[in-house]
Parts: sequence; C-alpha cells; structure tokens
Amino acid sequence: MARHAPTHPPLQPLRQARKLRRMHAALDLLRTLAREQALVASAASVIGWDQETYLPDAAHGWRAEQLAWLSEKAHQLATSSRWSDALTAAENEGSAPALTAAMRREHDRATKLPGELIAREAQAASLGKQAWAAARKNSDFNTFAPHLESLLHIAREKAERWGYPHEPYDALLDGYERDTRASDIATLFDSLRPRLRELAATAVERSATRRAQLPAGPYPIAAQQALNAEIAAALGFDFQAGRIDTTAHPFCTTLGPRDIRLTTRYDETDFTSSLFGVMHEAGHGLYEQGLPTSEFGLPSGQAASLGIHESQSRLWENHIGRSRPFWEKWLPKAAQHFPQLRTIELDDFLSAIHRAEFSPVRVEADEATYDLHILLRFDIERLLVAGELAVKDVPAAWNDRFRDLFGFLPPDDARGCLQDIHWSMGGLGYFPTYTLGNLNAAQLFAAANQIPEIATATAHADYAPLLGWLRENIHTRTALTSPADLIQAATGRAPSPDDHLHHLAQRYTA
Amino acid sequence: MARHAPTHPPLQPLRQARKLRRMHAALDLLRTLAREQALVASAASVIGWDQETYLPDAAHGWRAEQLAWLSEKAHQLATSSRWSDALTAAENEGSAPALTAAMRREHDRATKLPGELIAREAQAASLGKQAWAAARKNSDFNTFAPHLESLLHIAREKAERWGYPHEPYDALLDGYERDTRASDIATLFDSLRPRLRELAATAVERSATRRAQLPAGPYPIAAQQALNAEIAAALGFDFQAGRIDTTAHPFCTTLGPRDIRLTTRYDETDFTSSLFGVMHEAGHGLYEQGLPTSEFGLPSGQAASLGIHESQSRLWENHIGRSRPFWEKWLPKAAQHFPQLRTIELDDFLSAIHRAEFSPVRVEADEATYDLHILLRFDIERLLVAGELAVKDVPAAWNDRFRDLFGFLPPDDARGCLQDIHWSMGGLGYFPTYTLGNLNAAQLFAAANQIPEIATATAHADYAPLLGWLRENIHTRTALTSPADLIQAATGRAPSPDDHLHHLAQRYTA
Repeated sequence: MARHAPTHPPLQPLRQARKLRRMHAALDLLRTLAREQALVASAASVIGWDQETYLPDAAHGWRAEQLAWLSEKAHQLATSSRWSDALTAAENEGSAPALTAAMRREHDRATKLPGELIAREAQAASLGKQAWAAARKNSDFNTFAPHLESLLHIAREKAERWGYPHEPYDALLDGYERDTRASDIATLFDSLRPRLRELAATAVERSATRRAQLPAGPYPIAAQQALNAEIAAALGFDFQAGRIDTTAHPFCTTLGPRDIRLTTRYDETDFTSSLFGVMHEAGHGLYEQGLPTSEFGLPSGQAASLGIHESQSRLWENHIGRSRPFWEKWLPKAAQHFPQLRTIELDDFLSAIHRAEFSPVRVEADEATYDLHILLRFDIERLLVAGELAVKDVPAAWNDRFRDLFGFLPPDDARGCLQDIHWSMGGLGYFPTYTLGNLNAAQLFAAANQIPEIATATAHADYAPLLGWLRENIHTRTALTSPADLIQAATGRAPSPDDHLHHLAQRYTA
Repeated sequence: MARHAPTHPPLQPLRQARKLRRMHAALDLLRTLAREQALVASAASVIGWDQETYLPDAAHGWRAEQLAWLSEKAHQLATSSRWSDALTAAENEGSAPALTAAMRREHDRATKLPGELIAREAQAASLGKQAWAAARKNSDFNTFAPHLESLLHIAREKAERWGYPHEPYDALLDGYERDTRASDIATLFDSLRPRLRELAATAVERSATRRAQLPAGPYPIAAQQALNAEIAAALGFDFQAGRIDTTAHPFCTTLGPRDIRLTTRYDETDFTSSLFGVMHEAGHGLYEQGLPTSEFGLPSGQAASLGIHESQSRLWENHIGRSRPFWEKWLPKAAQHFPQLRTIELDDFLSAIHRAEFSPVRVEADEATYDLHILLRFDIERLLVAGELAVKDVPAAWNDRFRDLFGFLPPDDARGCLQDIHWSMGGLGYFPTYTLGNLNAAQLFAAANQIPEIATATAHADYAPLLGWLRENIHTRTALTSPADLIQAATGRAPSPDDHLHHLAQRYTA
C-alpha cells in the first residue's frame, strides 16, 4: 500500500518533524543526560531514605560508602563535558531558553566546585554531624567548635568559587533561595524584629491566662497512624505515589517522579505532634506530587526554592491544620480514634493547639514565637560567614541575642547554639528560608481566599479547590520561575510580611 | 627521637612490607575494583528490596529504570578491561590462587555474555514476568508460551556462549551449583524417585488417619511478629545487622556486609506459616551473617552455591523448626502470645505440623512430598533446554508426570505448569538446587549431631553450638570451596541422599 500512496503529502510533515528533531537534538540529548543523572541521584535518595527509616545499626559504614559512590557519580554526570557540550548546543538551538538558563545556573554552580572540595565537604560534614551529636548530648560546644571552624572554612571557599554580589553569605543563600541577598533578608528581618517581638509577647501573655490542655493520653500509635493517613489523603496526598514511615525527625523526600516519602514521629501523650508533622510534610509532598513528572530531574520538574517549598508545608500545617474549620470537621473524627477527645469543646481544643510560649528550642516552638528563632540564627550565621564573629564566641553571641528576643537565657548550649543539625552538615544560609516560607504561606493563603469558591470550600474543610489553585499557581510553575516572580504572579503583589503578621495577630492576639 | 634511633632494625620489616605490598599490588587493585562493584550491586539490592517491601504502586516504572541503570553499571564494572587486567596481573602474582581462580570463573562467565544479550534477557524477563502473572491468573498457558519460547531461546544462547561439557543445561546449572552436571542430577533424581514416591505415599496415608489440627485463629499479626523475632534471635540472627519486613513471598536479601533483610507473610489463621517462613529465611540470613564481612563482594565473602545456601534454610526450618525439642521449649512461649495454644498437647501440635498431603502446589508442599515437585520440574526443564520438548507440549508433559508421581491431575495449569515464577524470569536450571539443599541439610545436621556437645545442646533447644559448627564448617568456608568439597570436608562423606531419606522416614513413617 504505502509504496503506491502519493509521496508528497506525507513527506511534508515528515520533513518538518525531522527538521524539528534536528532543531531539538541538543536539547533532547541534554534531557537524556539529565534523566540519567536523576536516576542516579534518586537512587541515592532511596538509599538515604532507608538509612533514616530501616537501616540496621551495624550497617551504617557500608551505607555511607554506597551513598558516597552514588553522590559522586551523580556529580560527575552533572559536571561532565558531555553535559557541558549538550548544554551549550541547546543554548545555541534556543528552543527552550528558560530551561537552558536554569540549567546553566545549576551547571555553573556545580562545575565551579572541584570534586576534591566536594569530597572534603562530605567528609567534614560526616565528621561534623557525629561531633555535633556528641557535643549536643554533653552540651559541650568546645568539642564541636573545630568542626564548625572547618565547615565554615569550606563554606567560605565555596562562596569564593561561586562568586557573590556583596558578601560571601549571598552565594550560600543563592543555593537555597535564588536571587536573594543577605542584605535583603537583613532589611526584612530588621523590620520584622520589633513587630514579631511584640506580637509574641502579647500571644504568650494571653496564652498564660488560659489553661486549656489536651486530654491526657495514651493516644495509641496505630490510631494516630490511621488518623494521619486519613487526613493526609483528605488534603490530597496520593498514597499511590507516596507513603508515611517513622523516623527520629519528620522529613519528606522524593525517590522518583511518583514516589514521595513522608515521615513523622509519635508521642503517645499527644497525637497532634505526629499529626502536625504529617500535615507539614504532606505540604512538601503535595508540592512534589504536583510537579510535572515528565520533567523529573530538570529545573522544569523541580520546586522553585526552599522558601517556596516551606510555604507549602506551613500553609497546610498552620493555615489549615491549626484552623477552626479544619477541626470543626476533624475533631469528631479524631474522637472516633481517641475516646478521650469526645468531651472536649472545640474552643478549648483550639486554645490548646494555639498555646504560645517562649521556649528555647526551635523545633518545639509555636507559630507565634517561631520566627524569632530564625532571626537569631540568621544574625549569627551571617556574622560567622563574614568572619565578623569567631566560632569560639558563638555561645555568648547566641545567648545575648536570645535573651534580648526571648527575655531569658537558654538553660544550656544543648538547648542553645547546639540545638540544630544544619551547621554540622555545612548547611549555612539555609535558616532564613523557614521564615520566608512562613511569609509566603500567609500571602498565598490570603490570595487564594480572595477567590470565593476557594474560601467557601476551605471554610467547610474541603481542600480540593485550594489544592487546585496551588497546583496551578505554584506547583506546575516549577523552578523556571524565580521565587519572587512566582509570589508576584500568584498573589498580584510583591512578597511581603503583611499577611503573615496579620495572620499571627488574628490567631494569637485577637 | 626517631632521627637518632638505629635505622636497620625498623627498616628491615619496612622493606619486607613494601615488597609484600608490591607483590600484592594487582590483588589489592582487584579487591578495590571488586569493592566498588559490590557497592553498586548492593545499592541495586537496596532498591530491589524497597521495590518488594514499600514501593508505592505508581512508582514501579521509575524504579525499573533505576534498577536497570545500577545493574548495567555493576555488569560494566565487573567486565571492564581494568578488571580483566588486574585479574590477569593478580593471577601472575600468584599470592591468592583460590581467590583468583574463583574470580576468573565469574569473570569469564560475565564477559562471555555481550551487554546486548543481557539487556535482551532483562527485557524478556520483565515481559515474561508480567505475562506469566496474567497467564497464571487466568490459567491460560497459551499467553505465556511465546514468552517461555523467547526465554528458552536466550537461555540456550547463553549456554552456547558459556560452553558446556555434555548438554546446554550443564552451563545453566553451573551458574547456580558449580561443577554439577545435568547427568549427575538425573542419576541422583532417578535413584530418589521410587524411594521418595513410596515414602511420601506412606506419610500421606498415615497423616490421613490422624486428624490433628492447629487451634483456630485469629493469631494476631503483631503477636506473630513478636514471636518470630524472638525465635530468629534465639537461632542467632543478629538484628543489629538485619531485620524482618513483610512481602507477598518470603525472601532473604543482602544489602551490605552487615545488612541482611528477611521477609515473611502473615496468615491470621495459622501462625506457623509466617514463622516457618522466618526460620527458613533466617537460615539464609545466618549464612550471610556468617560470611567474612571484610571479603564482601569477593568469592571469599560469598556463599558457596544455591544448594549450600538452601541447606542452611532447610536445616533451620525443618530439622530445627519442625523438631520435638524445638517445640518442647517454644510451644509454651508461643502460648504466651496465643492463648488458644495453652491447651494443645505437644504430640498433637507436632502431628499438625507434620501433616503430609499430596497437593499440586510446590510452595505449599510439606517436607514429605516436596522433592517430588522438584523432580518433575527438573525433568521438564532439562527436556526444554535440550530441545526435546516443545513449549506447547509443556502442560501435557507436566500433567502426565504429575499424575505418575502424585496420583491425580493438577486441577488447572495455574496450579500446574504455571505455578512457579522461575521460568518467567529466565531462571532455568535453578530448581534442582532446592532438593540438593534438602539433601545437604540432612547430611550436615546428621554430621553435627555426631558431636555430643552439639547433640545435647540441640536436644535442649540451645543452638549456639550448632551455629558455631555451621559457621566453622560452612559459612566461613565461602565460595572458595566447591559445594561437594564443602560437604565432604564438613561431614567426612561425599554428598549423599541417605540422611535425607532417613530423616523423612523417621519423621513421617516411623
């Protein structure tokens, strides 16, 4: 048949297709290379997930070697000359400028660091984590200090290699929150400090006058797991493409385009601890599940930034999970799992979960005081990176600032400057994204609620319209858009702390 | 200090050490390459384990790609010219002849298969598994037949490339049970057939006269898990270097030198189903935990063969787990978990777990009839590989042989020639190792019981001396010794079916 058919009409589109394929040949190769790199990097993620969830104690040594091999291989692939050549060729093709620009950014950052430096950092971070765990246990900053010194040295070396507009901290921050500068954060945080301080003081004072408490436990773990899964599914988390396991600290990790793993931890005296953990991580997970799966491993399949990622977790944890409409629906359901909840009034329950308190430990802090912890950390790490604060002076600097913000001294360094794991892994420049997440969450939630259909559904604890809006305005926009542009486009306004302050004032001081 | 010390005495050993290092330079490089290869292969194992235990449904596609990448990389490393050169150089050094000989065997087998063939086999096996699952579900052999045809074609092609002494089946079998030939198995199985047939018939007849049954369930899963873990630990399984999870079919897999994962499945009406699964897999796991960890990834850190591996699982499952002394100790303990066991007599309990029955499905078969299933499969697959049986004639050939052995016809192909997964993954030549495992288990257990200290301890359900003997005589001997030599050295006799037949006769017909 085909041999007798007229040749011209079919050939025309065929030629076009060939031309199109030629036009995209470099981009196609680049996508193929990125897919391979994503396979290796995500294999490392599987192995890292297992390390936190199920790894037997004696297996850590071998596991570290497996992870190091896979991480090095993933880095090699992303910095190879094949990758570099394909990227340059794809840029010249010009068919996907936003994608190639984002890949250029990532590639340049990756290739500016020699393998030797990456290995040295991995080594220092591994030793640093161990030393930090022991130092925190004994509340002994001195044993951690030399490790922080090394990690700081490496962070500065990375910043110098990457380059920066004003100060080395900019280069570190840029890896977590692109196009954001330390001076912008400082200006923002300086303006927030007095308002947050006052708001927190009022919230804590009010909280002290109410004595609302959750009914006593036990809240059996199996019942917590059942309720958590029910709620995560009700938010829209797809258990066909994800699951929840148990770890020492809650997290969310992506093992493949349709494989998003959440974790939480359980407290038998307080079911809200694991639940808010799950809602927070499910917020991250919904973002990951909403990214375009066909673009996995490319900036066009990646989250925009940590500050945007954190906005999703905070939105679901705080704006939904701690709201009255949510508990109007879910308190009766929770009481089916936990009979002791049958008699508590909704108002008392909300008072209990809205307790505000000045406490030394960030991960146990409530919404009203949380950002103060971040302001403190940003100050310290910015000075450290700039070389304006010596490592040995960290405990004193921490305690001084803490007393100014919270009105008392941390009981010890374990609950002071040693409490967080971040610095021990070289994660300098990460902390500000938590508060950016809070601000973004409030701004996005306020904007979504301007849409009557969403506001009505959310007021009835139906979250499909809200999730749909987030999918459209945040999730599918990916890392091809900068965080600030994303917020501007989604909310019609530049990023601002107003909605967050308004939200805190409403919930904690109204 | 050091500069003033006399130079000669320290230099002498230093020179020797240097010379020694030079002498082993190639072996050291080979060990380094093997370690890297083991890192990659074991990373694939982690990912494969997760696939069977916790992978969300929608994630299978990406997971298959991750696995394919890691498997291909592991194959590339083991067949690289660096590896080949290092192996040749290490052979020339001559410092570890048994190790290099074993590595040469493996390397030659690996390099004889082109990557294209391996990829084609992986593809055919993946499609074959899917087609088999559907065919078994519908009991429709015709839809599986073309896949079996392809897999058989590939198996023959592999055999031709590997070469063989008499028939292509030898080359396939050699990959599972080295230095063993199809004709040896045929001679052995021919001699076993009438004796096993008679023994099974007597056992089934006797069993029918007793009506002993386990008390009715439910046996809650959490209680089964607690008892299984207690028993696995009592056998010597080290939970610091391993764990137990839940899967559709029990298995044991090694994710690293100190990371051995067992799985089982649960039946709430019969706690012995998960328990014997755990004891079987713990037998494999004890072997893996007993291998020298420093040699991980080398033949000097690997199990000797599948027939030896299976001897360990069968020994702990059948010779220990179905024995009177074991239940003298553990029935009262099991009754603490399951109150319905408090009133059953030990004799009745033993009768219940020693029930013999002619049934169509191998994985549900008891000890007395199990080997008949293997004899049948060996016959069929040997004829298939030799080209003396056409794929389309498999159901008829199966049913004829089954009726001769079992006295009735399988109810359908799903419970006949379609019941096992092995052929659908290209696993031709694997089945005989199950019966070799049974024979080896009985011979090893009989030999160990010749030692009074072991016999006495085992009679009191104290298994430390028995495990110690297995560690010394089997586990630490590794793949540097051939299966037959291992059995000869451990028991003082060539491999023989006598102890197995004696054991079955004692337990089922005495």
